[in-house]
Amino acid sequence: MLKKLKQQVCDANKALVEHGLVTLTWGNVSGIDRDKNLVAIKPSGVDYDELKPEHIVLVDLDCKVVEGDLRPSSDTPTHVLLYQHFKDIGGVTHTHSFHATMYAQARVEIPCLGTTHADHFAGPVPVTRPLTPDEVDRAYEHDTGTVIIDRFADLNPLEMPAVLVAGHAPFCWGKSAKESVKNAVALEAVAQMALGTFTIKPDAPRLEDYVLNKHYQRKHGPDAYYGQAKK
Amino acid sequence: MLKKLKQQVCDANKALVEHGLVTLTWGNVSGIDRDKNLVAIKPSGVDYDELKPEHIVLVDLDCKVVEGDLRPSSDTPTHVLLYQHFKDIGGVTHTHSFHATMYAQARVEIPCLGTTHADHFAGPVPVTRPLTPDEVDRAYEHDTGTVIIDRFADLNPLEMPAVLVAGHAPFCWGKSAKESVKNAVALEAVAQMALGTFTIKPDAPRLEDYVLNKHYQRKHGPDAYYGQAKK
Amino acid sequence: MLKKLKQQVCDANKALVEHGLVTLTWGNVSGIDRDKNLVAIKPSGVDYDELKPEHIVLVDLDCKVVEGDLRPSSDTPTHVLLYQHFKDIGGVTHTHSFHATMYAQARVEIPCLGTTHADHFAGPVPVTRPLTPDEVDRAYEHDTGTVIIDRFADLNPLEMPAVLVAGHAPFCWGKSAKESVKNAVALEAVAQMALGTFTIKPDAPRLEDYVLNKHYQRKHGPDAYYGQAKK
Amino acid sequence: MLKKLKQQVCDANKALVEHGLVTLTWGNVSGIDRDKNLVAIKPSGVDYDELKPEHIVLVDLDCKVVEGDLRPSSDTPTHVLLYQHFKDIGGVTHTHSFHATMYAQARVEIPCLGTTHADHFAGPVPVTRPLTPDEVDRAYEHDTGTVIIDRFADLNPLEMPAVLVAGHAPFCWGKSAKESVKNAVALEAVAQMALGTFTIKPDAPRLEDYVLNKHYQRKHGPDAYYGQAKK
Repeated sequence: MLKKLKQQVCDANKALVEHGLVTLTWGNVSGIDRDKNLVAIKPSGVDYDELKPEHIVLVDLDCKVVEGDLRPSSDTPTHVLLYQHFKDIGGVTHTHSFHATMYAQARVEIPCLGTTHADHFAGPVPVTRPLTPDEVDRAYEHDTGTVIIDRFADLNPLEMPAVLVAGHAPFCWGKSAKESVKNAVALEAVAQMALGTFTIKPDAPRLEDYVLNKHYQRKHGPDAYYGQAKK
Repeated sequence: MLKKLKQQVCDANKALVEHGLVTLTWGNVSGIDRDKNLVAIKPSGVDYDELKPEHIVLVDLDCKVVEGDLRPSSDTPTHVLLYQHFKDIGGVTHTHSFHATMYAQARVEIPCLGTTHADHFAGPVPVTRPLTPDEVDRAYEHDTGTVIIDRFADLNPLEMPAVLVAGHAPFCWGKSAKESVKNAVALEAVAQMALGTFTIKPDAPRLEDYVLNKHYQRKHGPDAYYGQAKK
Repeated sequence: MLKKLKQQVCDANKALVEHGLVTLTWGNVSGIDRDKNLVAIKPSGVDYDELKPEHIVLVDLDCKVVEGDLRPSSDTPTHVLLYQHFKDIGGVTHTHSFHATMYAQARVEIPCLGTTHADHFAGPVPVTRPLTPDEVDRAYEHDTGTVIIDRFADLNPLEMPAVLVAGHAPFCWGKSAKESVKNAVALEAVAQMALGTFTIKPDAPRLEDYVLNKHYQRKHGPDAYYGQAKK
Repeated sequence: MLKKLKQQVCDANKALVEHGLVTLTWGNVSGIDRDKNLVAIKPSGVDYDELKPEHIVLVDLDCKVVEGDLRPSSDTPTHVLLYQHFKDIGGVTHTHSFHATMYAQARVEIPCLGTTHADHFAGPVPVTRPLTPDEVDRAYEHDTGTVIIDRFADLNPLEMPAVLVAGHAPFCWGKSAKESVKNAVALEAVAQMALGTFTIKPDAPRLEDYVLNKHYQRKHGPDAYYGQAKK
């Protein structure tokens, strides 16, 4: 079932290694088929270089395994909640990439300091609140999704395809599994650059709003002119 | 047309990856044929490992595509303006290499702290002013070139083959596409070293002018004795 | 003798290189056969890429060589003392991985700032006291073990599989040689992330205890649900 | 002539790349034949991956080329002066490795903060004085050697096989070309670790002298027991 989606999700998980975003097995990518409401996700604790499309687990929106011999990622309930609330996304990537995780641990949002950031994220990358003891105890992974949804009450997830979970690490998303990985790459880069920028100049200025908007729109707006026209 | 130039520009773009200067597709190199006034440049948003000489786009000095099936880099108007004003350069490289971009985001020039810097840049690497809202709105990429040209009113682009565009990233140039990449490599290195030097000693001294001049001249002056004699 | 153990120890030593944990020959991994009370350990000063299972040296719990043509690692007495006191461990890894060593040199424990840390270490990673002049003079490598054992008087080595030896570098351990390497990878990562987190925010908060416990238990507790069920 | 030495020097130059010590062509290694008083050194500005033993240039102790079609490294007079004054060394390595260069630019000696340092350098790695305008003007590369020799008036070059030239970069040496590269690797590592250690704790303590001596002696003293016995 869903062979093409499984292949895409498998490739996207392997891309985490190529981009230097993962250590050991600390990361997972999923993709959704919106017609069937099935999520394809990495199995838990499996090495990326051993991963094959047939290992990818299919779960429904209740996190029940529909196909696959392996346990799905322990972060599956977070992925699923994001798909339920962010209706236009098609892929989710979770990593512990080092610099984004530093900001998540510091619980400091990443302000937009330059056009690299503006090309991918239409504003500062937000941080969630910490989970409560009750949330951690009752439904930890599900409520990791809850604190993300709470934080996005006034944010558009397509314009801000990343979040830092306080004391944990980033989650990114996009229109496909592959695009969610690209956003994870961009997030790690802007986190590293932000850290360095503030080391050089602790009161570094935010990028002017009119440049931020220009850069975001030239890549993502209705008149985008970056890249090749879609066929 | 211009097969050799296209090959050089293709090779130079691929060299960005080998030198670790690019993430995703954030970088582009061009070269110019000064007889024909044609610029060969990377197509927009194409992966470096898929890039072939026949993908390289030829544009004239009005940024019109003269040959090629793909859209040229969205940064083409910046490259072209540099060729128009810096008459002796033959290649331009734009990257978002991390440490140079940190300085561009901090909007802090990179002072000459050592001979690595002096071997390539005859003084502090300058930062442009930010673009005005009007410039961003009207002709963003063209005026990214304008703020560079403005900044170089009193600078010799052959002695200072790099600039940091405020809130954006570096542009470098050289006598050829290949040399512009070398300058981008050197810029990233001196940016990283400057950041570390100031972390060790916030009031680190500038390199003595007489050493700066000696190093720059032994590589680039009329009596240069670094490297092998040109045949 | 103990061919399988030698192969595992050889593989684990080579994994140090793959994970970027070693420079030159600054690291060694050992494993123990608890039935025979024999420790298999890397020979001293041998390059990892030349290492073969037959080079692995077998020593008894008095550090006497039982099998092997090469000298065992000079750190052998430290490994052996750890096996004698930490009865449930099966492997030990010693490296000078850069960020963990920075903390060892600063003699600062690594507090738990996020779930990456909590997934592997049930609290702050401890630092030993310095060795006394007498300890260094008399039995340096053995007493490197002594200061570790002293520090663990009130700690459970299975819940805290790492230590920073003051002014030296980390030692890690686990149920097998392979697991001790995984803990060394995790330690280096959390050290680098801690350094960056405090650069972003000098008073970064410790991870809430209830999250630390949840993460540690979901990977290591009796009801662990991370990874695939053991067959 | 001296085929074996040329091969060793060629290999040692290529090892700079494997160890990540060089960018572009910023580094060179030489070796000396003490019987013939001939120095084998890298040609200037040649890429490491194109380097072959027959490219290695032989010069005498007056820096005159005795054999070879290419110009020797522009740093040759520095290498030669070191061989003239440090009678027991057999190889010299010069790099602009990033972290050692940061300390050279900051003009701050690298104190001994841990056993990694003590294993290679018997005390803080020293910094030279800057060259005078006259020295730079008259015999720049020769006097780069002079300021090193001056700094070592009271130091034993075999116990301290590295120096930081103020505002420039490190020079390292050893009993052979290969050993000088190993010391350059160790220097870069201890520089990076020192920078990180002071970031964690600005007043990090120096390693106790009795540990420094123990570590240095166990590797280099008359009763050294690290590594395999020489056959």
